[in-house]
Amino acid sequence: MSLDVAFTPIGHGGAEVQGRTVFVVDILRATTTICAALHHGARAIVPAASTEEALRLGQTLGSDDVLLAGERNTERIPGFALGNSPLEMTPEAVRGKLLVLTTTNGTGALLAAQGAATVYLAAAVNIGQAGRRAREIHRGGGDVLVICAGREGGFGLDDAYCAGRLVQAAIGDKKNTEGLNDAALASLDLVRRYGERWERPLRLSAAGRDLIAAGFRADITEAARPDAYPVLPQFAERRVTLEAPAS
Amino acid sequence: MSLDVAFTPIGHGGAEVQGRTVFVVDILRATTTICAALHHGARAIVPAASTEEALRLGQTLGSDDVLLAGERNTERIPGFALGNSPLEMTPEAVRGKLLVLTTTNGTGALLAAQGAATVYLAAAVNIGQAGRRAREIHRGGGDVLVICAGREGGFGLDDAYCAGRLVQAAIGDKKNTEGLNDAALASLDLVRRYGERWERPLRLSAAGRDLIAAGFRADITEAARPDAYPVLPQFAERRVTLEAPAS
Repeated sequence: MSLDVAFTPIGHGGAEVQGRTVFVVDILRATTTICAALHHGARAIVPAASTEEALRLGQTLGSDDVLLAGERNTERIPGFALGNSPLEMTPEAVRGKLLVLTTTNGTGALLAAQGAATVYLAAAVNIGQAGRRAREIHRGGGDVLVICAGREGGFGLDDAYCAGRLVQAAIGDKKNTEGLNDAALASLDLVRRYGERWERPLRLSAAGRDLIAAGFRADITEAARPDAYPVLPQFAERRVTLEAPAS
Repeated sequence: MSLDVAFTPIGHGGAEVQGRTVFVVDILRATTTICAALHHGARAIVPAASTEEALRLGQTLGSDDVLLAGERNTERIPGFALGNSPLEMTPEAVRGKLLVLTTTNGTGALLAAQGAATVYLAAAVNIGQAGRRAREIHRGGGDVLVICAGREGGFGLDDAYCAGRLVQAAIGDKKNTEGLNDAALASLDLVRRYGERWERPLRLSAAGRDLIAAGFRADITEAARPDAYPVLPQFAERRVTLEAPAS
């Protein structure tokens, strides 16, 4: 009945993924963007580790339904149909499509979760759905691990705060912190520090400041909208889809 | 004029050590123990990456002045003269001695700091000295990086809190958080959360709970004594000594 947080995909402090239910968090912006895309009708998102792999997957999967999406250093990859902004994932753009997505940090976190019993994606835009599932698993005696994408292999305040909100939802009102690792305790401390409003920790984070500097301030506002896209994306067999059968 | 924290020796988020002043923190217990040993007259501490390396170094350095010290899973390594407890580092035991020390997490953090302009060791027992030096460097426009030993490659609440105290000392009363990375910001949040008393975050941490379970509760009390050993250990040329010339 462990409830652990890993602030980075590497070095979980021995918290292995095997047999656990993993929630991957990359709130700025991959997991937010994926929730938006699935909510607006995308069939699936296939994460790619690099631009080259995205291009290769695009050719392999090749059909009119495939769109390449992704960013490097916040900017859309040249030649790709979409970047990594949730605001681009309109119904008009993504309905019925299969997206091949590559991002600076989010992809690594998803790959680090491979081998887990189940892998979900979490952000503010689906915190109700993700939190409810985390609580079910935790109360049912299952092992939960929240993996933050973080930033270039290091700690990201945005993801750590989101992890804290998920831990808070999992333990509920009982405030029983038994079975939480040090990072889970610290993530709860961040929630106490920043309170209920998502936007402040997102704007303060290095990822947030970079987005603002690059002209993507609206993406932060979008990523800070709780339950804007109430879906529960699941990563299995190398693709992210709405949990099937849809619940 | 960056002021960064790395919660683990791996994945600094691009924060390289080169040209920076690094403070290594492993408050439970390596950096506390080293402060105690140097304060009580040990000549130097040579960190070893493994039990085997400690034995080899002990033979190479071999003289009556050399003592082997270290732990694995909190317990003294069989055959070694000393464990990794600050309470063992009495003047009677260590005065004039050269200690070869190997510990589960602390050694890795020191090795990760190699290549830095200067490497200091920090804990509660020398927070005044370490904090003053961090403030001098930061105010002088130098780049400071605090590397936490953490726990098995993951986040440790004990070290993260200590890092926060160091960051707090570095920025002083000005509360100017410009140039701080996300982990530095979060470490300050932990200080606000736990306040001035060291013992609470140390006892709550996984490292602290393990020590209590193994019968080392007194080590936590010792590690929580601010400025009990007001020295500024420096790591250079593969050994830790008092900063020379002594200031």
